[in-house]
Amino acid sequence: MDVEDTVFLLPGPVRMHPRVLRAMGLPAINHRSAEFQAVLADVRDLTRYLFQTAGPVAVLSGSGTAGLDAGVSGVLRRTDDVLCLVNGKFSERFFELCKVYARPTPLEFPWGEPVDPEQVAAAMERRSFKAITVCHNESSTGLTNPLKEIAAVARKHDALLIVDGITSVGGIEVRMDWGLDVLVTGSQKCIAAPPGLAAVAVSDRAYGLLHEESSFYTNLKAHIDGLEEDDTPFTPAVPLFFAVREALRILKDEGLEARVQRTARLGAATRAAVAALGLEMLPRKGFESNTVSAIRYPPGLDDKKFRGMLEREYRTVVQGGQAQLRGKIFRIGHMGIVALQDLAAGFSGIEAVLGKLGHTFDKGAGVAAVASFM
Amino acid sequence: MDVEDTVFLLPGPVRMHPRVLRAMGLPAINHRSAEFQAVLADVRDLTRYLFQTAGPVAVLSGSGTAGLDAGVSGVLRRTDDVLCLVNGKFSERFFELCKVYARPTPLEFPWGEPVDPEQVAAAMERRSFKAITVCHNESSTGLTNPLKEIAAVARKHDALLIVDGITSVGGIEVRMDWGLDVLVTGSQKCIAAPPGLAAVAVSDRAYGLLHEESSFYTNLKAHIDGLEEDDTPFTPAVPLFFAVREALRILKDEGLEARVQRTARLGAATRAAVAALGLEMLPRKGFESNTVSAIRYPPGLDDKKFRGMLEREYRTVVQGGQAQLRGKIFRIGHMGIVALQDLAAGFSGIEAVLGKLGHTFDKGAGVAAVASFM
Repeated sequence: MDVEDTVFLLPGPVRMHPRVLRAMGLPAINHRSAEFQAVLADVRDLTRYLFQTAGPVAVLSGSGTAGLDAGVSGVLRRTDDVLCLVNGKFSERFFELCKVYARPTPLEFPWGEPVDPEQVAAAMERRSFKAITVCHNESSTGLTNPLKEIAAVARKHDALLIVDGITSVGGIEVRMDWGLDVLVTGSQKCIAAPPGLAAVAVSDRAYGLLHEESSFYTNLKAHIDGLEEDDTPFTPAVPLFFAVREALRILKDEGLEARVQRTARLGAATRAAVAALGLEMLPRKGFESNTVSAIRYPPGLDDKKFRGMLEREYRTVVQGGQAQLRGKIFRIGHMGIVALQDLAAGFSGIEAVLGKLGHTFDKGAGVAAVASFM
Repeated sequence: MDVEDTVFLLPGPVRMHPRVLRAMGLPAINHRSAEFQAVLADVRDLTRYLFQTAGPVAVLSGSGTAGLDAGVSGVLRRTDDVLCLVNGKFSERFFELCKVYARPTPLEFPWGEPVDPEQVAAAMERRSFKAITVCHNESSTGLTNPLKEIAAVARKHDALLIVDGITSVGGIEVRMDWGLDVLVTGSQKCIAAPPGLAAVAVSDRAYGLLHEESSFYTNLKAHIDGLEEDDTPFTPAVPLFFAVREALRILKDEGLEARVQRTARLGAATRAAVAALGLEMLPRKGFESNTVSAIRYPPGLDDKKFRGMLEREYRTVVQGGQAQLRGKIFRIGHMGIVALQDLAAGFSGIEAVLGKLGHTFDKGAGVAAVASFM
């Protein structure tokens, strides 16, 4: 397969605009110069726009996990009790991360089921927790958790709310003023930039709590204070900052609200196509993600064969399942600059492969369902 | 100034080959695919070549500091005493980093003076330290510390030796078999790739000590074990891996030893030009770095004016001094793919500006000194 020319529908990285790719390939510049300060100032302002905040923000050279690491290690201390809401692979990893920097207790839900705010409230009644962690959009199960309701519980108990928004920020509505204290995203998801940068927004309350005792590279205070002065505490990944600036400009040109609405249409179109093909979504109805769809394989359909043929014969890239969902689902990413046309292209290949592998459905029903949204 | 078309002589980032820039601008690919596994396998093998080791290596998505963070947080524990050798800004930062993950004691030397192995030996006699940290090439002062002699002291006392080789690995001889336990470098220095990746080599002894209690994102064991399986624990900065692979291929084509020798000629040529212009090097004679030259301004010569004119009128980019050396020195980087021709171009501009600012010297003496090395 020609990996440079694909129908690219991963749950991240996602397809990048040629403007973003060109920005990335610029020659080296001095990262301690007025020219790069201007880049950092743009990235800071655009990051504030992305998070819809006037408060502290940081952009770290590292993956989204570096942002979560910065948030948890900066706000919490090793003796702090934290309630970790776990209903998928990424919230599970978030719990693992908290083990290093705090004293976490998991509250688990089946994969594909949403976090239940009432159970969170009950856990908070039983015992005191300084903080709650939650993965807003569990891309491992294609599910969006009811963040606003969870935030209300956290507020009621005066607990800090630390949110993995890696596959929601810029694609699904999420507001700091719901009562979020730390919100993290990654560059390669709804922003549609390359992987390698993490963005973090914090509440004034969380900023006041930031300490520097648990981390050096991911020291969140240093990153926030640096960016405020058009600077970074350590050498930044310069080409990725160029790329993210360009990608955020494209996002702002579209408008955050417009992108969120368009992403919702992509999610709805995907679900319509899935239904038209006689397939089933993994997550509980009503909680399906608008940025990542997790689709159950019909009985007997082999993941490796399906995705292999899809790539080789139709140069179309989707993702499989992880951990306990390996072999049971495939996942389609539809965020960033992905368009309905990309979904039509993707489903045309998916239909062809499903047919070849013996799944029966009305030929053309999937692409027709996508087209009905255009 | 046209920042895309300069004579680029920073102590990092350094000039990149067009092949490296083109590799970076490729479209997104699946980082959990056979195609990217092949990239990771190449990067791992080339990183082993760079470090001249068959032992454990890691490549982290983050700056060189992320590599130091991984090394210290992975090998040391909070109760471990570590002797930090400090003779410049980067070794000072290394000491600051150790405060987060261990119990460091600084052993300080004046900036511009090398670490004295005898004083290190005396400190090790007085008190027991589990580890020693040293910055091999202090780019803040343009000085190379006597690492081999320091390593002998560490070996004698059975102490771990953790080395910042960010501006030496690939440009100045440094061998794990001198008795190094952790050796770190960054992508934007002697490798001549963009900033944003850190490479780490560890001894078998250090690998055996690795624990996962102090860091999550910079968990060195997870990064080493991942790379061994053509994988990364977190989403990698994909375009930077493409770029580093290309840059390491260029380095290997030249040959590590050949590049180190060529870099030594660049250093010698720079020092000859500096002497010919009646200027003085900052570091003690005999310890001048071959990758970064730190040059004292003659009395009355203003840093801001000098570097401003150099950039505006001759599109030539050099670096100033940091911290206590601000305004007192300027620094030229000559590593990676920088060639004698680049130095000739750079010194032609430096001569012109020095002349305009009233410094007297034989016109053309600097570039002639460089040319005599060609």
